[in-house]
Amino acid sequence: MSKQYALGIDYGTNSCRSLLIDLSNGHEVGSTVFNYPSGELGIILDPRDPHVARQNPQDYLDGLIAVTTGALSQAKANVADFDAAQVIGIGIDTTGSTVIPVNKAGVPLGLLSEFKSHLNAMVWLWKDHTAHEEAAEITKLGTQLRPEIMAKCGGIYSSEWWWSKILRLRRIDPATFKAAYSFVEHCDWIPAVLSGNTDPLTLKRSVCAAGHKAMFNTQWGGLPDKEFLGKLDPALADLRDRLYSEAHVADTKAGDLCAEWAKKLGLKEGIAIAVGAFDAHMGAVGAGAKEGTLVKILGTSTCDLMVAPNDKPLTDIPGVCGIVDGSVMGGYFGIEAGQSAVGDIFLWFVNHLVPDSYGKSVGEKFENMGKAMSAQAPGATGLLALDWNNGNRTILVDHRLTGLLIGQTLHTEAHEIYRAYIEATAFGALTIIKRIEEYGVPVLEVINTGGLSIKNETLMQIYADVTGRTMKVSQSEQTCALGAAIFGAVVAGAGSVADIQTKVTATREKVYHPIPENQAVYAELYQLYHTLHDAFGTATWSGHVNHVMKRLLDIRERQR
Amino acid sequence: MSKQYALGIDYGTNSCRSLLIDLSNGHEVGSTVFNYPSGELGIILDPRDPHVARQNPQDYLDGLIAVTTGALSQAKANVADFDAAQVIGIGIDTTGSTVIPVNKAGVPLGLLSEFKSHLNAMVWLWKDHTAHEEAAEITKLGTQLRPEIMAKCGGIYSSEWWWSKILRLRRIDPATFKAAYSFVEHCDWIPAVLSGNTDPLTLKRSVCAAGHKAMFNTQWGGLPDKEFLGKLDPALADLRDRLYSEAHVADTKAGDLCAEWAKKLGLKEGIAIAVGAFDAHMGAVGAGAKEGTLVKILGTSTCDLMVAPNDKPLTDIPGVCGIVDGSVMGGYFGIEAGQSAVGDIFLWFVNHLVPDSYGKSVGEKFENMGKAMSAQAPGATGLLALDWNNGNRTILVDHRLTGLLIGQTLHTEAHEIYRAYIEATAFGALTIIKRIEEYGVPVLEVINTGGLSIKNETLMQIYADVTGRTMKVSQSEQTCALGAAIFGAVVAGAGSVADIQTKVTATREKVYHPIPENQAVYAELYQLYHTLHDAFGTATWSGHVNHVMKRLLDIRERQR
Repeated sequence: MSKQYALGIDYGTNSCRSLLIDLSNGHEVGSTVFNYPSGELGIILDPRDPHVARQNPQDYLDGLIAVTTGALSQAKANVADFDAAQVIGIGIDTTGSTVIPVNKAGVPLGLLSEFKSHLNAMVWLWKDHTAHEEAAEITKLGTQLRPEIMAKCGGIYSSEWWWSKILRLRRIDPATFKAAYSFVEHCDWIPAVLSGNTDPLTLKRSVCAAGHKAMFNTQWGGLPDKEFLGKLDPALADLRDRLYSEAHVADTKAGDLCAEWAKKLGLKEGIAIAVGAFDAHMGAVGAGAKEGTLVKILGTSTCDLMVAPNDKPLTDIPGVCGIVDGSVMGGYFGIEAGQSAVGDIFLWFVNHLVPDSYGKSVGEKFENMGKAMSAQAPGATGLLALDWNNGNRTILVDHRLTGLLIGQTLHTEAHEIYRAYIEATAFGALTIIKRIEEYGVPVLEVINTGGLSIKNETLMQIYADVTGRTMKVSQSEQTCALGAAIFGAVVAGAGSVADIQTKVTATREKVYHPIPENQAVYAELYQLYHTLHDAFGTATWSGHVNHVMKRLLDIRERQR
Repeated sequence: MSKQYALGIDYGTNSCRSLLIDLSNGHEVGSTVFNYPSGELGIILDPRDPHVARQNPQDYLDGLIAVTTGALSQAKANVADFDAAQVIGIGIDTTGSTVIPVNKAGVPLGLLSEFKSHLNAMVWLWKDHTAHEEAAEITKLGTQLRPEIMAKCGGIYSSEWWWSKILRLRRIDPATFKAAYSFVEHCDWIPAVLSGNTDPLTLKRSVCAAGHKAMFNTQWGGLPDKEFLGKLDPALADLRDRLYSEAHVADTKAGDLCAEWAKKLGLKEGIAIAVGAFDAHMGAVGAGAKEGTLVKILGTSTCDLMVAPNDKPLTDIPGVCGIVDGSVMGGYFGIEAGQSAVGDIFLWFVNHLVPDSYGKSVGEKFENMGKAMSAQAPGATGLLALDWNNGNRTILVDHRLTGLLIGQTLHTEAHEIYRAYIEATAFGALTIIKRIEEYGVPVLEVINTGGLSIKNETLMQIYADVTGRTMKVSQSEQTCALGAAIFGAVVAGAGSVADIQTKVTATREKVYHPIPENQAVYAELYQLYHTLHDAFGTATWSGHVNHVMKRLLDIRERQR
């Protein structure tokens, strides 16, 4: 039998990337990156408002051609008998909620000449925070009128999400809002383009995007009801009819590759296109997500994903970002949690508070701090931090929290604080695991992916010691694109998600086992972290904290 | 009438300094510094034990000659008709508790050939911390048996103090202990040498040293009783008979300048020598201490001194380091409080956590951070710190406390943290003022002295804004030596302390008035500081802290 390949396209914040894999063994035969040319690193900014972050939809189309043809060329060079006709399916993942206003034909307003250079007609990137007032308004109204809906998104509706952005557009630019017949998520639009059907009323929408960002749930009949939307703005109630009543798992076919795009990409017409999903969710699949496995995507922030079978009911897990049936794979609830800042805390620290005695560049500083702190025993710094410099996503769901560092003396050094911050993020990770398990979803395996999991061995060991679990690391460095390719293969009929995962995903040989004596110290430190976490993060806590500094000193003295 | 001059000698940690003043107007006509040649910057260290800090008594004698003759030469050069015979008195201040083991003749063991280079026979400098176990033992026994004694020294006996050091010597080196007929404070020994009577049984001891460090109080008959001392070690009970039963205020004459030292120094034989005292106490007098005036000596740590008339009883002030009748001046209780680290926190921060983007040298970094942070409004950093990196001396008297910083985001910059630490020390200063006032001693005026008060205008303004009081700065940069000279004049009969202060002390023209709108913001921040202070520093506090981060964000948003 001839070789079969699947293509995954991963749309990131500043660039997109292709990954072409051999479905028999997961070999990565081609992969190209395309940096979005518009704006600054692909993001169109507004010098008058730092919250603005828009994108040019043309970049997505240009990138699609560039990374696909690039991957095919590489495959031809890498594999002797490679034939583009052996590519059987395509999957797509994107950032989100990345919202595109479209006309009746499903063409992004930003591609139309009359809206050229009109900022509000462009794509509203996930990190656009202009809609913070609208988000607060939705949260307030939702809490009053639809607590069951708010419960599913952790109690707070974000300025990064679907309805906030659409309501914002309606408020600040009614003309552009009116010109938009409908709105699509970035991950809905690319599969629609490839399959040649961009009709907003019939293109297949992603349940991952719909469920996590647009409050879509079959429990209450899809999108939020007209009464609720109408109280936000009558125009939103009207819009509801021009959106969707169904949303699909990524193992559903969005369509077949149309002639026009088959030609543009150099692929066979009619191959299967999977429904899109968000990067983290497909990344989880690429990392090997299955029942009992927690996938941790360690980046500037983290995304923690698990799946739980949807044939038995799953209670809401308080403080967990979202539970959406099918958002990761069919037949399972996708459970999404996360930490608002992990790598970002280390980057902030190295950029703002590390003297040049550790090195000239950020890389050198990290390396030398890493060496110095990896030689220290747990608890030897005497420090403890809360990992809240960017708020707390899970389990407190409170962006109005800030950092805390305790235990400094006149001898505390930068690399010790760096270690304390790594430990703080590990304590945050443990808090998430505990919460998920408390609500009946056991975490039997942890697979990590993302830059930190590959580059930072001390961090991984600390995570193992703090959580008391073996830390595995995904083999692929492109788990998002790999996950997308897996869905491309699934919708082409190559097998189930699990079948294909078995062939193409793996973890690295190097694993991090918890070291019992470190675990014991971290168990003590976690008690202190937990006290500070509840004291500063919850309204219900009341008690004493005067033991914290003294216990830290005791542990430090013992560990030095 | 011919001009009259007085000489003050200030023995610091690394050097000693003379100040020769014109008693009619305070003009400083001569001042020389002598760096102790022994050890490292004058401190004899032990590479095996970082707690060891000893000094060579010979350095004190060599320094005495050098700085006196140096000052006289300068005076001759500066003042046309200057005559050394116009110097009428000498005052001495030193660090403390700086303990010297002496033989029966009052000669320091360290000067004897048989003890040459013997570390334990040298002077035990104030910052020698080898006796921490002995200090704990004294605290424990004292708390059990003599709570009234412990109350006077704030509840905890320090490893820096008299009995800890003597007990330590007895424990680790009985032979040297036995060779020591008695022990003297550095501030007792120099006046004794100058007056030609170093007999340990009759030389005049300082009540400042005795009261603050040796638990001396006429209330219980002088030094602690033999029963108590004997329980620590029978040898201490025996030693009590070879110490002293009286201690004196610095306005008492220790003796007259003996012929030998008159010759060595080039001064007139028979001029008056004042009883010695500690640097901070004489510094307070040099800064203008009087009833109602708080003198703040701002250095690596701070010393806060006040006087209250001794003709009415003064309750113990909980958490204040010491209340000793006559320790600052006759007729008044000396009230000593302090912060364990002020300049040291800033130095730690600049040395360990400030990137070179602020400058290459420590000086440049401070200057540029100072510029950046002085442009910020109070509360605009969103940060709050506790000033406990070296524990808390007043009012918690707990060296097992550590630092805390709260409110960091991913945008927090080094100069903002610097400002937060300055504010933290100001909040600590306000806490001391409030405590002293609560116990019936009104603070009507604040005079600052020490490097920070002269060099750091933003710090002084923050102190004014936080405390709600006008900050004055002492005119002299050598208030300790000036205070010593004042006592030299007093014992020579030139007038009372107050008379001479009127002529020779002054504050600078530049004063720092509180700015009402800043005061209002700092009042809010102080509430939060106070909550954290009590929560982390006291066993009795119990309550909530979850409002702290949010209030800091509210204030930040308002102030930006």
